[in-house]
Amino acid sequence: MKISLIGLDADDTLWHSESHFAVTEQRFGELLSPWIDSEAAASRLLEAERENLRLFGYGIKGFTLSMIETALLVSEGAVPSAAIGEIVGWGKEMLDHPVELLPDVEETIGRLKAAGYRLALLTKGDLFHQESKIAESGLAERFEFIEIMSEKAPANYQQVLDRLNVPSDEFLMVGNSVRSDVLPVLELGGHAVHVPYHVTWGHERVDCERGDWHELASLSELPALLAG
Amino acid sequence: MKISLIGLDADDTLWHSESHFAVTEQRFGELLSPWIDSEAAASRLLEAERENLRLFGYGIKGFTLSMIETALLVSEGAVPSAAIGEIVGWGKEMLDHPVELLPDVEETIGRLKAAGYRLALLTKGDLFHQESKIAESGLAERFEFIEIMSEKAPANYQQVLDRLNVPSDEFLMVGNSVRSDVLPVLELGGHAVHVPYHVTWGHERVDCERGDWHELASLSELPALLAG
Repeated sequence: MKISLIGLDADDTLWHSESHFAVTEQRFGELLSPWIDSEAAASRLLEAERENLRLFGYGIKGFTLSMIETALLVSEGAVPSAAIGEIVGWGKEMLDHPVELLPDVEETIGRLKAAGYRLALLTKGDLFHQESKIAESGLAERFEFIEIMSEKAPANYQQVLDRLNVPSDEFLMVGNSVRSDVLPVLELGGHAVHVPYHVTWGHERVDCERGDWHELASLSELPALLAG
Repeated sequence: MKISLIGLDADDTLWHSESHFAVTEQRFGELLSPWIDSEAAASRLLEAERENLRLFGYGIKGFTLSMIETALLVSEGAVPSAAIGEIVGWGKEMLDHPVELLPDVEETIGRLKAAGYRLALLTKGDLFHQESKIAESGLAERFEFIEIMSEKAPANYQQVLDRLNVPSDEFLMVGNSVRSDVLPVLELGGHAVHVPYHVTWGHERVDCERGDWHELASLSELPALLAG
């Protein structure tokens, strides 16, 4: 295969993200423990997030509002207002959390650039928070193109390819989500590499057989895969 | 002046937005009336919004979280949880509100296109909600270029002009906010038309003398201004 453009996902591919959600979900489970156990709290929260996706889209602000809604619902209004204040505080803490790059990310991007690939950062989520993280990461200048997508459906990827004038079979997408980074790109006739992160948000989980894509344990293995 | 590209703001320029915030703020004032009067509620809320801007950016989700925070603060935690649920509900209602175009918008856009101008929709705010509104407005196809900006500073406008290969003195921006649509564009050497909306968010208000820009009562007067 001849690859000219490599798309890299950001959250949980270049830097940690889902682990912060997981920490908050654990706190949320403890907060709701007078009413339900932590497993039920997690599943009620995921239900609310899914229901609210149509209105909220992705990101921490919507997640925080879904937590508040779930707390009120599960406790039938008995959750103390101080607890609501705590939830808002968790959201702000997450938004304010410094960006922590995953291991070997900077070096790997350097190697891909040195090998002559065009690089695009293709991330999903809240525009404002994603831009803040990209700026803070120090990686912005390594990418020819950066797009914060409201959704990662085939049509959204196609728009990027059209804008960059890249045929889909010369495009390789790399990311931690089979649902968002792999399947839609294969559907367009592109290539994909899945690099799992140790936590996956329930909404991104898909039940499917490993298919026509590569799986790597770390982003640092990508240059060798491409060279091989 | 020779104008080749016209940038149009969206919220309160193409469709109603701030009026929905104003309705919600009124409800918010009533909700807090056991503790403070509505004027004080509005000013406390604006204070919270401004403080949170660094983390939340623009949009309804951040506005909703700021209302919740303000309610907890002002009532010293005494606001009943049902009221918090109400606030979340207002946020969802606003996000779900149908797009209502301002008068003559479709016709004016048609006339600008017919006159040969390149058109860009340049809006600020929440990516997901802005995309939903643009899609619902039915106007997307009338624009050569659509950008949802995280901020409307001179550098953000410059990026758009670079991408579209337009010299700043051939660019005219049209919008309801002197702070966001007029001043940064003048700073780049571009042109601006201010079309006030009947409500302006406190954060967008600026104290300045009318300067080197045009002011129109309605977008429908723009084609005549350009032709004259």
